Amino acid sequence: MSPHVHTINFAKRLLMGPGPSEVDPRVYRAMIQPVVGHMDPAFLEILGQLQQMLRDTFRTVNTVTLPIPGTGSAGMEAALINFIEPGDEAAVVVGGVFASRMCEVLDRCGAKITRIDHAWGTAPDPEQVRKAVAGKKLKLLGIVHSETSTGVCTPLEPLSKIAREAGALMVVDTVSSLGGIALETDAWGLDVVYSGTQKCLACPPGLAPITLSQRALDVLRNRKTPVQSWYLDLSMVEKYWGPERSYHHTPPVNMIFAFHEALRLLLEEGLDLAQARHRRAHLALVAGIEAMGLRMFVNDPAARAATVNTICIPDGVDDAKVRGHLMQCYAIEIAGGLAQLKGKIWRVGLMGLTASPSNVLLLLSALDGALAEAGHKFPRGAGAVAAEKVFAAS
Amino acid sequence: MSPHVHTINFAKRLLMGPGPSEVDPRVYRAMIQPVVGHMDPAFLEILGQLQQMLRDTFRTVNTVTLPIPGTGSAGMEAALINFIEPGDEAAVVVGGVFASRMCEVLDRCGAKITRIDHAWGTAPDPEQVRKAVAGKKLKLLGIVHSETSTGVCTPLEPLSKIAREAGALMVVDTVSSLGGIALETDAWGLDVVYSGTQKCLACPPGLAPITLSQRALDVLRNRKTPVQSWYLDLSMVEKYWGPERSYHHTPPVNMIFAFHEALRLLLEEGLDLAQARHRRAHLALVAGIEAMGLRMFVNDPAARAATVNTICIPDGVDDAKVRGHLMQCYAIEIAGGLAQLKGKIWRVGLMGLTASPSNVLLLLSALDGALAEAGHKFPRGAGAVAAEKVFAAS
Repeated sequence: MSPHVHTINFAKRLLMGPGPSEVDPRVYRAMIQPVVGHMDPAFLEILGQLQQMLRDTFRTVNTVTLPIPGTGSAGMEAALINFIEPGDEAAVVVGGVFASRMCEVLDRCGAKITRIDHAWGTAPDPEQVRKAVAGKKLKLLGIVHSETSTGVCTPLEPLSKIAREAGALMVVDTVSSLGGIALETDAWGLDVVYSGTQKCLACPPGLAPITLSQRALDVLRNRKTPVQSWYLDLSMVEKYWGPERSYHHTPPVNMIFAFHEALRLLLEEGLDLAQARHRRAHLALVAGIEAMGLRMFVNDPAARAATVNTICIPDGVDDAKVRGHLMQCYAIEIAGGLAQLKGKIWRVGLMGLTASPSNVLLLLSALDGALAEAGHKFPRGAGAVAAEKVFAAS
Repeated sequence: MSPHVHTINFAKRLLMGPGPSEVDPRVYRAMIQPVVGHMDPAFLEILGQLQQMLRDTFRTVNTVTLPIPGTGSAGMEAALINFIEPGDEAAVVVGGVFASRMCEVLDRCGAKITRIDHAWGTAPDPEQVRKAVAGKKLKLLGIVHSETSTGVCTPLEPLSKIAREAGALMVVDTVSSLGGIALETDAWGLDVVYSGTQKCLACPPGLAPITLSQRALDVLRNRKTPVQSWYLDLSMVEKYWGPERSYHHTPPVNMIFAFHEALRLLLEEGLDLAQARHRRAHLALVAGIEAMGLRMFVNDPAARAATVNTICIPDGVDDAKVRGHLMQCYAIEIAGGLAQLKGKIWRVGLMGLTASPSNVLLLLSALDGALAEAGHKFPRGAGAVAAEKVFAAS
């Protein structure tokens, strides 16, 4: 072995990008409960508890509610390929990178795709969606709740009604919203909802929770062809997580320990309070950002996700230099834009444990220095003061 | 939240089943290095180190050597679907559950499969394989190195030659062998080799290391159709792990920390010494088992995997009762048989940290009591003594 490979040991960062987010020490402690076998009765009991907490988080009574053994993109893949057979029609509302990815995944399983594009940084118009799907025999309608590439949060109820009218399953990506933004799987009639552990659920990356309605299960069970993936075939995966407890694959045991504790933390706080905390942090950040003479990328405040905050990079300010300053001086990570937004926006994640008043104040103060160094003209110190006023008033 | 959901807290087991195996405390400590972003330069350096250690473990110089973000079955799926397009021919040598699973995965990606079955508990006959593939235009030949369901280890070199002559890629499952049994990816001409972290590599489950030869990469790059899975598309995954470092999905960061440390431990000991340790533990266990009047399921000692040890359950002895005794009195986990071997064999894993003299002696002593209680007649105490003699002599 090369002699320079040492034990991993680098300084703690403050994770304020669009995920992964900060993780509570309790979650790390749970993660190092020594490994047990995946058929051990004590472990199976943990699975049952985790599933119930996950149902509470998704706001559903769906039996099939479980974490997929992979990161968020594995959740997306499972949420689509299990319900599509070659030649089936699917529609996706696309306003960013992650909705585009849904189309790519659907394309690979032989779906005929109706792609309903709308401007990045805006919420989709339900009427446009209704017209686009009219007369089609859709198997599913895909939508991203909080688009991590743009910071837009889309109201789900109107689209869910459209999906229902079209006889389509409503498939929703809540990777950067579950736990941080209100979501009602059952009350809003959502059929397939998936997420990732590393954002508002405040757990390390590695699992993708998913929940399936009875309608979704019926489609799965009435397939004529096998699901193209063996690993992500939910008709088999559910048999391990269901009363049969039949072996399918070895789950990532320690990730499940960690996720169990992360869900405990979330539900101890209470979903409503956690979402209010996310919202308050978001409003304070926006107040600070605007006080510093910057502009949010999403114009309409009602269309802004509380979780992923996108900020326009002012003309003449160097993207990499500002982010470098934050990392080098304060070990704070924020992210740049993806695809067409590269170099145009910053993405600040206020998710999970990251969504705290302290982190918002610290980021604004650190950004103050970084922007000044980058030549941006603005009232120094105004950002943190504006944010502090929001916290003080709430 | 239901008030009875507490912090996870159950007694440590000794994992002597066919995986997961015991994990060193150093690995747990590494796993709780706080999460960092997946594009953080410090993390990217860790990835590079991990890849080099993985090459050393696979005994290869293959550039594309990386852990798939899923458990062993995700590794199997990635190892097959990336190289098959609908209608391609593939052959699999089948002598157990996991080789059968290869056929299921291949079937789902539209391969025409030649299934070469041989008796469970025996090594395949290379001549039978040669005849079965003669005249076929094979894209790949699949084989399981150490079949976790039967305890058979198959010599790979003769089959690799057959694959080469047939113009096929040689795809090898080393889930329960990598690190514990000699494997020479380059010297034996293996094209696609995958494994899991939770067996001989002594890490929790959650990652599936894989390595691709240049021939395999050429097949991947010359595909006419996209890989059916977006998540497991190695042509994209490799761009994150290669010099481009372009974002594909968020990897399970803490699992990667853990795996980095597990590989450090393995290479500190040295591959050869680790394999010798596995072999010694196996020979001692077999001596003990036979001294107790039991019979190994794999008759031919040369065909036995050192890692997964399969023992015939004597007539009249209750499978579940013996395993229950081991768990209840000593918190030792061993496993029963899968599929047609259910109720017929026990499977004892001697993999990774589990493969130690102490664990072998302890298991034999504990099994002594369990077998006596189950009515098996044998010279009490003889098992541990026989095993101890093997250790003393080596």
